[in-house]
Amino acid sequence: MPRFFIPAPASDFISVTGSDAHHIGYSLRMKPGEELTFCHGGTDYCCVIENISESEVLCRVVDAVPSKSEPSVELTLYQAYPKQDKLELIIQKTTELGVTRIVPFISSRCIARPDEKSYRKKQERMQKIAEEAAKQSGRGIIPEIAPLMTMKQALEDMKKSELKLFCYENGGEKLSSIPFGGVKSVAVMIGSEGGFERAEAEAAENSGATQIWLGERILRCETCPIAVTAIIMNITGNM
Amino acid sequence: MPRFFIPAPASDFISVTGSDAHHIGYSLRMKPGEELTFCHGGTDYCCVIENISESEVLCRVVDAVPSKSEPSVELTLYQAYPKQDKLELIIQKTTELGVTRIVPFISSRCIARPDEKSYRKKQERMQKIAEEAAKQSGRGIIPEIAPLMTMKQALEDMKKSELKLFCYENGGEKLSSIPFGGVKSVAVMIGSEGGFERAEAEAAENSGATQIWLGERILRCETCPIAVTAIIMNITGNM
Repeated sequence: MPRFFIPAPASDFISVTGSDAHHIGYSLRMKPGEELTFCHGGTDYCCVIENISESEVLCRVVDAVPSKSEPSVELTLYQAYPKQDKLELIIQKTTELGVTRIVPFISSRCIARPDEKSYRKKQERMQKIAEEAAKQSGRGIIPEIAPLMTMKQALEDMKKSELKLFCYENGGEKLSSIPFGGVKSVAVMIGSEGGFERAEAEAAENSGATQIWLGERILRCETCPIAVTAIIMNITGNM
Repeated sequence: MPRFFIPAPASDFISVTGSDAHHIGYSLRMKPGEELTFCHGGTDYCCVIENISESEVLCRVVDAVPSKSEPSVELTLYQAYPKQDKLELIIQKTTELGVTRIVPFISSRCIARPDEKSYRKKQERMQKIAEEAAKQSGRGIIPEIAPLMTMKQALEDMKKSELKLFCYENGGEKLSSIPFGGVKSVAVMIGSEGGFERAEAEAAENSGATQIWLGERILRCETCPIAVTAIIMNITGNM
């Protein structure tokens, strides 16, 4: 069934305009009486189309249920800004796998360092990629692409999560030895191409993050977040 | 330390010619007395350069040790042929994560269906990608890219592995419920864009494969093998 993300519905009727309305009426050629799903904040609103006009699709909510595709754990990925379009691949893949929020940040060894204006443009594009991936994979939310942070800000932001993990190429615990039982929110911090400086690893430790080591094979910086998201979703029973 | 893959060494001296010799002598500007590592079949040969000429680098083997980056489990990925260059991404990422062999095959819903000649060209290119990824990630072997198989051939080939898994979008067991204990070889079969036909799932089951279900979120066909490889490496203690 087609899925669309909407703002919080105010009543039992949902009015869709713009590109989604066009998509429903023209691309999908849907008709009154047919069913579709609107998603907001982890709730799936099962709807029936009441009326389709040139510019609006009006739907009636038949049922509202928690999205069964949303994982039981909120995973925030703090990703040091990588080169080229690697962040787009990371966003697409981790969205499919169940990430809740992605926070790009600048660490010492980042080579790409977008300024505020150029980041805002990228952020818009990346948010679009997250939305597309969320629709395609049947997510109940669109993961948020946060504003670009400094490492210090990212470490401060991480404190919101119950469990804080810091992927470090120089060693640490195995993911399988971390007690995830009952944890509702996990933060994972991952480096860019050059990894992290020792001082950064210490700062992360001082912020309460546990160092994680992914083994002997050196993963590219875009492979690491995809692998870690998959593993955490598996360990927490969400995959 | 620089790593190079070589044929099985016949003696305590290893002679390198061609592009690797050029890379050692010119790109890396290495000198006699310096150390490098040659890899073959999961063994790391720690060597000292004895002599460098125009066309040859002669090295003496100082030590031969099992590569510590090789996982304890042999993972063969049977991947239904996807569209575009997705197979290249799959090969790169699963090589980093520890796959042993990749067997592309044609299933009912494959859209891309290369003929033998065009596959042979692609196979060469994909083998090169596996080699690059193996070098970059510090693997002890280069994963083999097998000839293109039919689904029937792939199912027959899978029988070589102790544990056979079939990823099915219509349901099955969770990866975390599979007993991997003591298993030395695992085969995983994954679909292309359209997934598998019911008859194909039945054929896989009849061949002794266990159906695996990766949960409610629909993964793109290139995301699935990356996620599954990461999860299996984690479960088997190799990540």
